[in-house]
Amino acid sequence: MNPLDALLQADRRHLMHPGTHAHDHASGELTGRVMRRAAGIRIEDHAGRTYIDGFAGLYCVNIGYGREEMAEAIAAQTRELSFYHTYAGFSNGPAVELSRRLIEDWSPPGMRKVYYGMSGSDANDTQIKLIRYYQNVLGRPRKKKLIARQRSYHGSGVATGSLTGQPKFHAAFDLPLPQILHTACPDFYRDGRDGESEAGFVARCVAELEQLIDREGADTIAAFFGEPVMGSGGLLPPPAGYWPAIQAVLRRHDILFVADEVVCGFGRLGSRTGCAHYGIAPDLISVAKGLTSGYLPLSGVIVGERVWDVIARGSREQGAMSHGWTYSGHPVCAAAALTNLDIIEREQLVGNAATVGTYLQAQLHAAFDDHPLVGNVRGVGLLAALELMADKGARQGFAAPGKVSARVAQAALRHGLILRSLGMHDIVGFAPPLIVSKADVDEIVAITHRAVDEVAGDRDDD
Amino acid sequence: MNPLDALLQADRRHLMHPGTHAHDHASGELTGRVMRRAAGIRIEDHAGRTYIDGFAGLYCVNIGYGREEMAEAIAAQTRELSFYHTYAGFSNGPAVELSRRLIEDWSPPGMRKVYYGMSGSDANDTQIKLIRYYQNVLGRPRKKKLIARQRSYHGSGVATGSLTGQPKFHAAFDLPLPQILHTACPDFYRDGRDGESEAGFVARCVAELEQLIDREGADTIAAFFGEPVMGSGGLLPPPAGYWPAIQAVLRRHDILFVADEVVCGFGRLGSRTGCAHYGIAPDLISVAKGLTSGYLPLSGVIVGERVWDVIARGSREQGAMSHGWTYSGHPVCAAAALTNLDIIEREQLVGNAATVGTYLQAQLHAAFDDHPLVGNVRGVGLLAALELMADKGARQGFAAPGKVSARVAQAALRHGLILRSLGMHDIVGFAPPLIVSKADVDEIVAITHRAVDEVAGDRDDD
Ligand SMILES: Cc1ncc(COP(=O)(O)O)c(C=O)c1O
Ligand SMILES: Cc1ncc(COP(=O)(O)O)c(C=O)c1O
Repeated sequence: MNPLDALLQADRRHLMHPGTHAHDHASGELTGRVMRRAAGIRIEDHAGRTYIDGFAGLYCVNIGYGREEMAEAIAAQTRELSFYHTYAGFSNGPAVELSRRLIEDWSPPGMRKVYYGMSGSDANDTQIKLIRYYQNVLGRPRKKKLIARQRSYHGSGVATGSLTGQPKFHAAFDLPLPQILHTACPDFYRDGRDGESEAGFVARCVAELEQLIDREGADTIAAFFGEPVMGSGGLLPPPAGYWPAIQAVLRRHDILFVADEVVCGFGRLGSRTGCAHYGIAPDLISVAKGLTSGYLPLSGVIVGERVWDVIARGSREQGAMSHGWTYSGHPVCAAAALTNLDIIEREQLVGNAATVGTYLQAQLHAAFDDHPLVGNVRGVGLLAALELMADKGARQGFAAPGKVSARVAQAALRHGLILRSLGMHDIVGFAPPLIVSKADVDEIVAITHRAVDEVAGDRDDD
Repeated sequence: MNPLDALLQADRRHLMHPGTHAHDHASGELTGRVMRRAAGIRIEDHAGRTYIDGFAGLYCVNIGYGREEMAEAIAAQTRELSFYHTYAGFSNGPAVELSRRLIEDWSPPGMRKVYYGMSGSDANDTQIKLIRYYQNVLGRPRKKKLIARQRSYHGSGVATGSLTGQPKFHAAFDLPLPQILHTACPDFYRDGRDGESEAGFVARCVAELEQLIDREGADTIAAFFGEPVMGSGGLLPPPAGYWPAIQAVLRRHDILFVADEVVCGFGRLGSRTGCAHYGIAPDLISVAKGLTSGYLPLSGVIVGERVWDVIARGSREQGAMSHGWTYSGHPVCAAAALTNLDIIEREQLVGNAATVGTYLQAQLHAAFDDHPLVGNVRGVGLLAALELMADKGARQGFAAPGKVSARVAQAALRHGLILRSLGMHDIVGFAPPLIVSKADVDEIVAITHRAVDEVAGDRDDD
């Protein structure tokens, strides 16, 4: 057996993949693809084929792959202090320095402390614990419900999968947990009524949130979770005026705002943070992904002054909070994040994301606004989507959603480009590394055009 | 300000530590300790003081700190493929190879697949999702309750903190979640009745479990979680005959057994796995810690045949399971685990843990069996504990538990040894790296002796 076949066979036998059809993978009906090496925006598989990674891993590899500087920083920290925990006041230099930089340079105003985890999911799990703790210290035992949005993605754990507003993350697992509610997803393209203005649509989303709060009682609602731009729920920039209006409601009812910046943080939108981009003033922030560009697992819960003060008060009343992960503040992961931030700052990748992002959006509009298969072209910075429609004029999607977008992604892959198909509708996603150039964008758009045309042609043949 | 003071100040200002008193840390009343470098079993802080790490980080640094081979393997993989996700059948060489070795060499018989996470907590969170999925595919919507044990530790998330059987992980967070139950902790030393035999005590633990199952209805109980040796709940080896008897009950009621090997796995007990050590035949296993020796965050859910078959069937009925972490199967973390296993195998560290572990237990018994402050000396392999008692003859603990053991740990720290104080009783824990020699053990026991004597002397002075 050749080495690649042996690898694929061992993969089928022994590795359980996330989000993968268990039977079809194990039986070989779904062909695995083993990635081998990557540099910059390009990645090569074990069969020797090279792809442009148009989705930066899972929108995380902001600085691109295979940076020598990262390998050296990680190795140096491994030699120096390969691990020590940060319980009971123990600490390490990289975690301290990273916290300082996150608060001073990479957070909106009013943020105070960083608590570390390894994933976006565990960051949001910590958020839920901090929110419950906060309300208990304030003596509000009933103010505990959490509101997230339909189609949102906040993780895949028992609690965080409950926040996630996608039915497939709930049904087979008896989720959501009690006390987790969902309100409207602000998808103006899909859900705006005929003749409704964007402002009218926003007013409707806000009214729905207010009705939910009224129905449940504001004194039972602790916090609201929102991604500045919704990611896996459809790569949906908020309609104009949405965040100011939502925040006003939350403030009026003393509901905490948790900004889930796992995708938007660290330059993806062409701004340092999604909060800065949209004028969001959060109480708590979750970060991950771009924090290390995926080189190592690291997430952060950034705690604002208001919540921190109550946590400190809680400790005076109850002693140390019982919460922690073994690897919280891992020195090697923190060192990777520090070098990642060095690179983003030195190479001005946030600015590049703004400039090249504007170009990407323009080129996608130019290529697809009039394409019969494409109903909507949208995005911000280096995050973009095409929404494919069965009948564009009637805003009519496909009966079995996700199949046509998957075929476009497969066609692109054949032509050397990784895109992401989001299956709740037929959405094709773009989120290349922040180092892409305009020439790279031209290549990405050209391959995408070819892929969309092929799928459109096949449909015509049907 | 000198560099260490600047570091401590930034730490107080910006880093939120796990399990740390928020106010006292931020105000400086709790003095932070910044670790700087480590090699072998020794670690140095920024003040230039060196310690023997008698607890291997948090019982995870099995191969010791600062291994050049680890730094090189991690750097090499970072250069080659710094990240790619493993969703939708994508894969990478290190994750595949690691899965093969975990199933073939590092698991009890009957295990089939490995799903990766980053922490012990997220592994157990995944377990809960898999268990619910399994029961739903089998058409048993009511068979969903989970049983863990009092004092157990299975993590710190919303769901996994619910499994954890320690009240301080529940109270401030409105936990445990519904449908999570706790049964007796098998602490024969503390809870055995006067004149009761070990076998009699085990029969009582088993009867308590049976009563719980009867009361709730076996058709409502999905799974049981157990650490082969209870870790943070007290470093408690099971009494003789405990695991066979518990397993018989679970099998009779068709309740899945989840072995939480996060501490016991990878040689800690002087056996490859805790399951092998105690003849446990689990359905599901959680591993973390020793899997990478803490060099990078990695955990695994090892799925047995029986559960895997149902998951595969589920995918044929429902499509791909919606579960996943961005960093599941991270190639760099998997590469670290592979080199860690190479080292454990090449240097025969499991055997060393057995040999030197036997020596450690003997030396602790010799030094402390007759010590007036020490009521119980216990352990297995390189995991051991002293339980301190106010009145040893009457098996009477201290009124405010955790203070005396903390003073012993502080005294040891002053003398250059890190031990761990477990505060639910006055327990002092040992879990050195698996590379320790008998000479190292002599040094550890000597310093501990001095520390215990000092604290005993202070008490006499009171
Ligand atoms: C907005 C958002 N939050 C949280 C998460 C969960 O992150 P992780 O997969 O690291 O758990 C994701 C992952 O895609 C995300 O997009
Ligand atoms: C037995 C056991 N399970 C799970 C965990 C949780 O692991 P983590 O801290 O990596 O989330 C621990 C941590 O100490 C543990 O001891």
